[in-house]
Parts: sequence; structure tokens; C-alpha cells
Amino acid sequence: MSSYPVRPSPSGSTARAIVLDERALPRRWYNVAADMPRLPEPPLHPATGKPVTPEDLAPIFPRSLIEQEMTTERWIEIPEPVLDIYRLWRPTPLYRAIRLEQALRTPARIYYKYEGTSPAGSHKPNTAVAQAYYNQQEGIRRLATETGAGQWGSALAFACAQFGLACTVYMVKVSYHQKPYRRSLMQVWGAEVHASPTSLTQAGRKVLAESPDSPGSLGIAISEAVEDAATHPDTNYSLGSVLNHVLLHQTVIGLEAREQLALVGEYPDVVIGCVGGGSNFGGLAFPFLMDRLQGRRQVEVLAVEPTACPTLTKGKLRYDFGDTAGLTPLLHMYTLGHTFVPPGIHAGGLRYHGDSPLISRLYEDGLIGARAYPQRAVFEAAIQFARTEGLLPAPESAHAVRAAIDEAVRAREEGLERVILFGLSGHGHFDLGAYDAYLAGQLEDYEYPAELVEQALAALPELPR
Amino acid sequence: MSSYPVRPSPSGSTARAIVLDERALPRRWYNVAADMPRLPEPPLHPATGKPVTPEDLAPIFPRSLIEQEMTTERWIEIPEPVLDIYRLWRPTPLYRAIRLEQALRTPARIYYKYEGTSPAGSHKPNTAVAQAYYNQQEGIRRLATETGAGQWGSALAFACAQFGLACTVYMVKVSYHQKPYRRSLMQVWGAEVHASPTSLTQAGRKVLAESPDSPGSLGIAISEAVEDAATHPDTNYSLGSVLNHVLLHQTVIGLEAREQLALVGEYPDVVIGCVGGGSNFGGLAFPFLMDRLQGRRQVEVLAVEPTACPTLTKGKLRYDFGDTAGLTPLLHMYTLGHTFVPPGIHAGGLRYHGDSPLISRLYEDGLIGARAYPQRAVFEAAIQFARTEGLLPAPESAHAVRAAIDEAVRAREEGLERVILFGLSGHGHFDLGAYDAYLAGQLEDYEYPAELVEQALAALPELPR
Repeated sequence: MSSYPVRPSPSGSTARAIVLDERALPRRWYNVAADMPRLPEPPLHPATGKPVTPEDLAPIFPRSLIEQEMTTERWIEIPEPVLDIYRLWRPTPLYRAIRLEQALRTPARIYYKYEGTSPAGSHKPNTAVAQAYYNQQEGIRRLATETGAGQWGSALAFACAQFGLACTVYMVKVSYHQKPYRRSLMQVWGAEVHASPTSLTQAGRKVLAESPDSPGSLGIAISEAVEDAATHPDTNYSLGSVLNHVLLHQTVIGLEAREQLALVGEYPDVVIGCVGGGSNFGGLAFPFLMDRLQGRRQVEVLAVEPTACPTLTKGKLRYDFGDTAGLTPLLHMYTLGHTFVPPGIHAGGLRYHGDSPLISRLYEDGLIGARAYPQRAVFEAAIQFARTEGLLPAPESAHAVRAAIDEAVRAREEGLERVILFGLSGHGHFDLGAYDAYLAGQLEDYEYPAELVEQALAALPELPR
Repeated sequence: MSSYPVRPSPSGSTARAIVLDERALPRRWYNVAADMPRLPEPPLHPATGKPVTPEDLAPIFPRSLIEQEMTTERWIEIPEPVLDIYRLWRPTPLYRAIRLEQALRTPARIYYKYEGTSPAGSHKPNTAVAQAYYNQQEGIRRLATETGAGQWGSALAFACAQFGLACTVYMVKVSYHQKPYRRSLMQVWGAEVHASPTSLTQAGRKVLAESPDSPGSLGIAISEAVEDAATHPDTNYSLGSVLNHVLLHQTVIGLEAREQLALVGEYPDVVIGCVGGGSNFGGLAFPFLMDRLQGRRQVEVLAVEPTACPTLTKGKLRYDFGDTAGLTPLLHMYTLGHTFVPPGIHAGGLRYHGDSPLISRLYEDGLIGARAYPQRAVFEAAIQFARTEGLLPAPESAHAVRAAIDEAVRAREEGLERVILFGLSGHGHFDLGAYDAYLAGQLEDYEYPAELVEQALAALPELPR
């Protein structure tokens, strides 16, 4: 029990939870493309090197999502049936981390937006539900996707169950066997889950022919899911991060948080999120960046990534493939090279070689800051958080916790009354093996070497810019 | 997507979530003993057969909890520091199960109180926090307890972390090895977790001497924890269910639910909860029973248990030991006999041989109803719930889901617009192995035979009543 005083918010509040009634659910998603000084370069067709057209994408995505991928409209209406599912867990709570503040003896006020109350336990259902809805509206009967540890697959399985769609998940084989619980969760929601590589697709059969014992990879699983969608007219493909429409759907996070902070008279000095493909980070940060881009506020925005997968802090902005196999359209993004093989860090959701083109451009233009942490410092922060605030963060989200604690300590050292907002994008209930390894002293830090990035990028085919 | 109409509540609401501001947190616990037509018989000292005195309990419990165990005061003030921790997750949400209603095409309105948002994922912290507080106030430095699968141990570990107490958990050895994740969770919160039997206590050493490979049992773990507390002056013992003060602390659940239902103009026709030792059930039901006992309302109250451990539906009311080893005070309760060995059903929290004396007396007096379900019907209900409402129920809580669905179907068949409230006492994120077994068709139903109860009770020593 700390005697460190609780500092009231500007409105005089010392409330811990700032809850919104479901009537306060945002009715529109915010599209940051409307306010960016420079838009991202367009995706290119891998065969022609020309910008991808809506027709190119039609075999695997519904028309409405292709439109959302390309639009610069500022606000996109959220359809009523999507809101209806959002109400199953949204608005999510915004908490003030009073007990963490006291433990740190910081004059900063720390807030966090908690997305772990969703059925799947992370922010991922925000877009899964929207994608399932639009696909169902356009007559699609089944969605195919890939998943690594299972965060995204379980979100899509949940969403498909809500709209009566079938769901096929290609789960990386090694995770399928090592992490059976998220697989079970997908099956509870009715999804069909295959250990990838499978013999169901040409891509899978090719891999199995060459190496029958392949443990699989996210790259292989993507190829299988895309092929499944492209070869079945009633089936589309669904992706959980990176793309513009995915980040768009996630902006409900930041829109709610902005509203909740306003209720206690607050506006953040800094907004912090962990970044893998960028959907959690963009979802939280874009509605605040909007204020900055429109000249209303001077908020700082900080993306946090692992030193083991330092896409923003060590990668380069250029065209690269979205998948390991090199089959997808070329995206203009910060990348470590699509041949990047991440070391076995435990924040599976942050192991992607690239970063959303929207975030990449904003970072290049100096509108977003970035910082990388080694995993032990991240778990240390997660445990300090769990012991003060109670909740167990997902290892991904714990990167944001680490940065928030460091910012709060700096505020103490500098005697500044800063307002810190971070995203707690999910709970760690399926990640206790990683906590176990940390507590047993079995985790090692790893800095991905810049030379490997240079080599991987040098090996890329010649491409514009 | 069902087109079945959503029926507004009496206040005209079709809201899904009924959330309370933290200012609406109950300030007092409700003590049902104040309103019972007949009090339970007192606990007896196992050696003397005389009612247990406060002095008998002082070596392992703090004075304030002993007082709460024995009082008939109607309302007990919740101390401010306990409220302060409750605010980490309370008030918990009350949801209306609109999508489940639609799937069932029932005219009933179904509400559920969700306790899975607590840090430990169940209702258990409601009492763990209070117990940690009172112990710390009386100068205790450490709490010892037992845990089976880990629900209670993790709740107490969390609570101790909040008050700077050390926490020692004796975890049944077979669970310690088979379910390492809840163990990790306890360690994240700073608890010391031992696989019981240990060589740290006389009780443990005795077991190990006789059978070095003992898988442990809850009975052994209780003996170890009690001995640890009794032999260390700075250490007390803490129990997660059955006792009066435990149920008292849980009444925040029902008090909040009553308030939340009133916000939409509702009062339940039936309140449903799963029952193991009784803390979840009592916590939800007692504040509604209060209305009935005080003559204000005619609410029906239904306790749900597994057919594999049918304490209320097949057990007998009589004095029996609280633990398997026969060392605790004798409690007057419905029991299957303390030698009961539960078959391997997956709802670990419902495998206790006895039932809280308060609930036992209320059941005997016809104020509570009871029903038992086999486990496959329970998992079937859990999956229907997960696919419509999203959340994954703990297998214990799924017993209440089963009964609520059956009540809603009956309402449809009888054309009755009933209001059903049930308790969703925890999430199933640590129980996916059980879901997996169900989906794979590996679960079997089991009816505990009445003859075994007769035999076990006949073997009990001669005791009053």
C-alpha cells in the first residue's frame, strides 16, 4: 500500500475506470488517409509492377472492403449489424493506472485502453467482425485465413460464428501442436482448423512434397489461405493487420479512448502502442494523430516493437512482399526483408517483417516515433503491471507497458505532470508459457542485426523507389 | 442473424450491457444470516464435539474474519482499502443475452452477471481481497492456502500482491504438473507455489513417507496449508468457499446485479448459479433471497451442480468434516461424505463433497431449489453460449448456462415472458483442454450413485444430529 497521493485529473476525477454506455459507441471509423500530408505509395502487382486495381483484388476481397482499402474519405459509417456485434464487448474500458502510478511515485497520470475484454481476448475482433459482415453481405459463404499462434484466427472464427459464415483457418503446424488451446477456442466458435502445410492446397502439397516434416510458417499458411479463397467462388480471404481497411476498423479503439479521456478532462501528451503489422497501434493512435494533423493538438505518438523484430527502428522503407513466399502484392512499407526469420521471441503478434504502409509513411514523415525493447525488459514491466494493476498483459501489449513505465519514470525525474495513454491490446491468458520461461530465467534478449536487414533488402528484386 | 424480435425491458431498454460507474460500487456486504428463518447449526470442534469458539479459530484466522463468520448483523461495511482494490475490476458488467434469446426464440429475457473480468478471471478475488486486507490489518505477514486447479490460489496470490503479503499456495501435485499455467499466474503475482504433498509440513512428510509418488489431493493440501498457518505466528490460513464470511464477501455480485437490473426496470423471476462450495452461488443469490425473506418479492433461486458431484440433490444434511483427511471442524451441511472421491469431471471448482452451511440450511428450508446436470449437456450449452454471446464460460459457470437455456426454452414452450438471471462466474481461458476433450467426443457423463453416499455417511463417526 503506497501512500503516494493520487493526483486528480483536470476535471477533479480520481476514478479508476472510465466506462462508456453502449450509446457512446462510435458510429463511424476514422480514416487517417484523409489527413495525411503524403499518402502511402500504392501497392503494386507482383507480376506487372503496376498499381493493383480493384479487379486484381476482387477474387479474394469483397467490393466494399476494396473500396475502404482505397478511399480517402475521412469518416466511414459503421454498419448497424457490425455495431450490434461490437456491443457484445464495446465500448471497452479505459483505466487509469493509479496503483502503478503510486508504485512508480510518478507525477504522470497513466491511462490505458483495455481491449482484452473482447471474446477473443484482443483488439482483433474489431476488424474481424467488420470483414465477416461485408463478406456475408456480398454473398460469400466462407472465409479463409492464416494464423500463427492463433490470436487472429480465433478473432475471425468468433466473427464468422456471428454472421453464420464458415471459417477455415490455416494454422502454422508447429503452433497447432504446441499451442492447442487457441485451436480449441477456434473450434468452439465453429471454425475448421488445419495444421499448415496441408494437402488441401497446391501450395501446401508442394511444401509437403519437398519436406514432409515441415513445421510450417506464416508465409506458407498465407499462401494456402489465399489459394483456397482464389479457387473457391463462395470463399474470400481475410487478413488481420497491415492493410488500410484493417487499421480503419481498429480506430474505434482510439475514438472511444479520446471520448473517455475527455470525460475526465484529459488529453494525452503521449500515446503509446505496440506495433506488429500495425493494427493495434493505428487503431489507438490515428484518432489522436487526427487532432495533430488537423492542427488542434501537439500529441506525441510512440510505436513500440521488439529488438528481435525491429521493423521501424532498423528496417528500411521500400517495396516488399507481404508474405515470406513472395506471392502477394508489393507493399510500400518499412521492412526487414520478406525473408526475415524471426528468432523465437514470445510476442508472436509482433514478429512480422513489415509494417502497415499507413504507419510506414507517417513514421517516415516524422509524425510517429518508434522505440525497440528486448524481451526481458518487456516481461519485467508486464509483471510490475500485473502486481499493481492486476491484469496480465499479452506479451505484445507488454511492450507498450514497458514504454509507458519508462515515460512515467522520466516524468518523475523531470518533475513533469505528463498524461500518458497506452494500449493494452490483449490479455496474456494464453501466454503463460512465456511468463513461465521468463520467471525461470530461460528468456534471452536478442538484437536483430542491421547487417541482416541490409542483406535481405539487397537480395530483393529491382523495384520502383 | 436471427430476425427474432428483441423484446424491450419494462423500462423500454434493449441495451446489451448494463454498466455501473464505480461510484455505484456497493459499500456494504449483505449477511443472509440476519434474515434466515433458521440459522445453520454451529461448527463443532472435532475433538470435543462442542461448538467451535473464536479462540479455537484464532491460530489461523484474524479476529475480524472470525467475527464475520459468527455475526448475524445484516450489513457489514466494506473497508475503504478493499473497495479501492475492487475498483480494479468492479462493478462487473451485467449483460443481457440478446443473441442467445434470439437463437432460442424465447420470450424470456436472459441476463447474466459476468465475473470473468477480474484479474484472476473469476469471482474468487471478491473474498481473497477482503481476507488479505483483514489479515494485513492484524499484523499477519503471510497467507497459506490450498488450491486444486488453481482458481482460488491465483485469486489469493493476486490479493496478497495488492496488500504486500507473502502468499504460499499448496497446489495439488497432479494439477501442478498438468496445469502449469495457473501456477505461472500465481507466480507472476509473487506467490510461492508448492506441489503438495511437500516435505515442508508434517502432514506432507507423512504422506510422502507412505507413498512417495502420491499425486496429492485437495484434502492433503488443506492439511498442509492449515499446519503451515498454525505453526507460524506471522501466517494465517485462507479459504476460498464454504464459510460464512466467504459467502458474505461475495454478495457484492448480487448487490450489483440487483442495482443493474433495476436500471432497466427488471426483477428476475429466477436466479441461477452453479454451486461447488457455494461462494459464487451465495454471492449472486443472497441479495435476491433477501427480498424474498423480507417478504418483498417471490423470486425463485436455483443451484446447479454436476451429476458427478450431486451434493444437494443426492447428499444428506448432517455434520461432516470439511476436508478429506477429517481434521477440520465439523460443519453442518449437505455432504456426500468427506471420503468422496470425485470422478474426473472437468469442472474442478464443483468437485467439493460438501456445501456451505448457509446454503445447506436454506435448501433444507425450501428457499433454494437444486438441479444436477451431466457434463456433456453442460459443454453443449457452453458452446451454444460462446457462439451466440461470444464469451467462453468456465466449465463451472457453464452449469448455470445450461439451466438458464433450459428455463428459457421452457418459457418459450409455455409462452411465458420470464426474466432469467444467471451468474457467469468466470471465463474458460484456462479450461480449453476440457473443451478440446468435449469436441473430440472424449467426455463421458457420470451419475454419482446414491448408494455410495449412503455408504460414506454410514461410515461417519457418531455425531449430534
